[in-house]
Amino acid sequence: MFQVNENYLKLPGSYLFSTIAKKVAAFTEANPEKKVIRLGIGDVTQPLAPVILEALHKAVDEMGKTETFRGYAPDLGYDFLRNAIVKNDYEERGCDIAADEIFVSDGAKSDSGNIQELFSADAKIAVCDPVYPVYVDSNVMAGRTGVYSEDTQTWSNVIYMPCTMENGFVPEFPKEAPQLIYLCLPNNPTGTTVTKAQLQEWVDYANRVGAVIIYDAAYEAYISEENVAHSVYECKGAKTCAIEIRSFSKNAGFTGVRLGFTVVPKELKCGDVSLNAMWARRHGTKFNGAPYIVQRAGEAVYSEAGKAQLKEQVAYYMKNAKAIKDGLKNAGYTVFGGVNAPYIWMKTPDQMTSWQFFDYLLENANVVGTPGSGFGPSGEGYFRLTAFGSYENTLAALERIQKL
Amino acid sequence: MFQVNENYLKLPGSYLFSTIAKKVAAFTEANPEKKVIRLGIGDVTQPLAPVILEALHKAVDEMGKTETFRGYAPDLGYDFLRNAIVKNDYEERGCDIAADEIFVSDGAKSDSGNIQELFSADAKIAVCDPVYPVYVDSNVMAGRTGVYSEDTQTWSNVIYMPCTMENGFVPEFPKEAPQLIYLCLPNNPTGTTVTKAQLQEWVDYANRVGAVIIYDAAYEAYISEENVAHSVYECKGAKTCAIEIRSFSKNAGFTGVRLGFTVVPKELKCGDVSLNAMWARRHGTKFNGAPYIVQRAGEAVYSEAGKAQLKEQVAYYMKNAKAIKDGLKNAGYTVFGGVNAPYIWMKTPDQMTSWQFFDYLLENANVVGTPGSGFGPSGEGYFRLTAFGSYENTLAALERIQKL
Repeated sequence: MFQVNENYLKLPGSYLFSTIAKKVAAFTEANPEKKVIRLGIGDVTQPLAPVILEALHKAVDEMGKTETFRGYAPDLGYDFLRNAIVKNDYEERGCDIAADEIFVSDGAKSDSGNIQELFSADAKIAVCDPVYPVYVDSNVMAGRTGVYSEDTQTWSNVIYMPCTMENGFVPEFPKEAPQLIYLCLPNNPTGTTVTKAQLQEWVDYANRVGAVIIYDAAYEAYISEENVAHSVYECKGAKTCAIEIRSFSKNAGFTGVRLGFTVVPKELKCGDVSLNAMWARRHGTKFNGAPYIVQRAGEAVYSEAGKAQLKEQVAYYMKNAKAIKDGLKNAGYTVFGGVNAPYIWMKTPDQMTSWQFFDYLLENANVVGTPGSGFGPSGEGYFRLTAFGSYENTLAALERIQKL
Repeated sequence: MFQVNENYLKLPGSYLFSTIAKKVAAFTEANPEKKVIRLGIGDVTQPLAPVILEALHKAVDEMGKTETFRGYAPDLGYDFLRNAIVKNDYEERGCDIAADEIFVSDGAKSDSGNIQELFSADAKIAVCDPVYPVYVDSNVMAGRTGVYSEDTQTWSNVIYMPCTMENGFVPEFPKEAPQLIYLCLPNNPTGTTVTKAQLQEWVDYANRVGAVIIYDAAYEAYISEENVAHSVYECKGAKTCAIEIRSFSKNAGFTGVRLGFTVVPKELKCGDVSLNAMWARRHGTKFNGAPYIVQRAGEAVYSEAGKAQLKEQVAYYMKNAKAIKDGLKNAGYTVFGGVNAPYIWMKTPDQMTSWQFFDYLLENANVVGTPGSGFGPSGEGYFRLTAFGSYENTLAALERIQKL
């Protein structure tokens, strides 16, 4: 009789955002007259920019003619896209990354979930707490995380690095050296980040202890401060210790278009085993490339028109972020983030737990946010609001919250 | 110091089709004047059908307006597509499959590679030999396959079920009961298949020994014979033992568009653990849905116009298949397949090995095929040609082969 992967059975409850979706659906069904405003999940709402639409239409037309039809894409992505990434995301920031170190994928979530496969079954991981759930859950499924304690809501074999208002949301080096360190900067969920100098310390630490940093830079387009790195490769020595995961979801509104990429430098090795070669093998075996039309849309992101249009889109969301931050502050809340990221991280009022505040906000203001505790134990007592709504909805939500 | 997943290091050589691509690139570079005809990889060449283009354009337009813009898709796929699949692929064939048993993905290759994650680390797998390399390689990466022998080109912990001209390419039940059985029918690479009655015997066997059948039905649109099942769920009892993987690549030309789905019936359980729930959890954690525009293209496949246009496309490729089969037969070759699948499986002439014939054909006819031995030891002495070229190229390739 077949047996299942028992690691799956260790996962407590369901994926955070599925739980939220179910709660909201139940509320909406019970209160069909109430207009719910969603500032919960980090999903964009602005339509695709004209330059992206144009690229998509053009690529669709190409797929309709024998001479320009494209079948299977190159395993690792089309050169036109990989070259545009190298030039714009790396060369222009002084980072020496080659096209064959770029792996185009269907999105940062897939890559974040799959990257752990490259490492040994007993690799010890370190994560910030609170943290994007995919990092931990994908390692649970692979059997790396030990035993879960309902009490502490932690896994016995995971190193948690608390990021709270007490330490300014900057993780400290763990006492025990991990093999894998997940860093999402600017951070989801807290909306905070670290300076380039602080990131350099992490790179130095990883090189010193022989760890690999999985650097999730999905929010780099929102960075507004000068002293913050857009790529981990701006730090000296990062190519021997860091993998960078990038997304088109937040900088170009591709949450429903699906495109991302991962950088695995050729210098990143375990003995003479190249992680770049391993990831190439995984792509070749378990993936068949991102759609041609979507890769053309990705290329358009880097055109001059694309850059201009998307800068406006990012500015639109950051105007929301500022409105939320200022509005909540004025209403007496303690708030963080929103300067280099589209997320606002607030303390819940009156000692409410994160889920208590979630229910309270849904029921009384009909606003959906994300409970901080859903991202890890140190998120308890915090709550995340995103700037990805429309400006009108954002102001309406704030007005409702201020009236509470 | 971090350690890698050592199972990756056990993989011999590179992925089959990457090797072929490299060989062809080297030949083309050395012989720029020779026009190489590719009948190797199973990649389509006909442009997308008009109804698909229309659906894509329309969906792109929707993504350009706030009111119709779509962000993250539902984890498991949009209802419009899942419902169309249920109605057309299952209801109309008398199979009782519900929409929440359908999981839309970015393609059958991803699903084929990822599905093994649901099973225990020591699950014993059985594969046909020859076989689509992804089934074995993804299990190698997960550490299930034991030790590789260069001599026999087999893994110590994999059950191989030879499919050769001697047994009419119908696998026999293995002596030792496996936990996972991969069946691709109609078959890639041999182009042969089994009758519905023979498939029913496999379903009965799986239920009897407590195994799960991973049923890859990527080529079902090419079935021309009445007594062949289009879905494993046409067999009685399949819902308690079979997962079905489907593709839009071959029936609708989506190799570069990327769309597929997997059916995991709710009745498929290990004790009280539902594989349907486990796969949902995997999708929710490590995947973020197929692109909205691509799912709309998938929906169009099932429209009346879509069915008519794609029937023509399949007929076009099957005309190629018939031309190859008849042409090779007339030239004195022994050939199989090509009746219910777009692949022709031929014996190599003069006791040549598969790779010898590959080189011989590339150098002397400038035609690319796939060496049978690349699919497993029982593929040695065979060679695969695909019907996915243009009709003109197919005839030209045949003419060159006949002249050898």
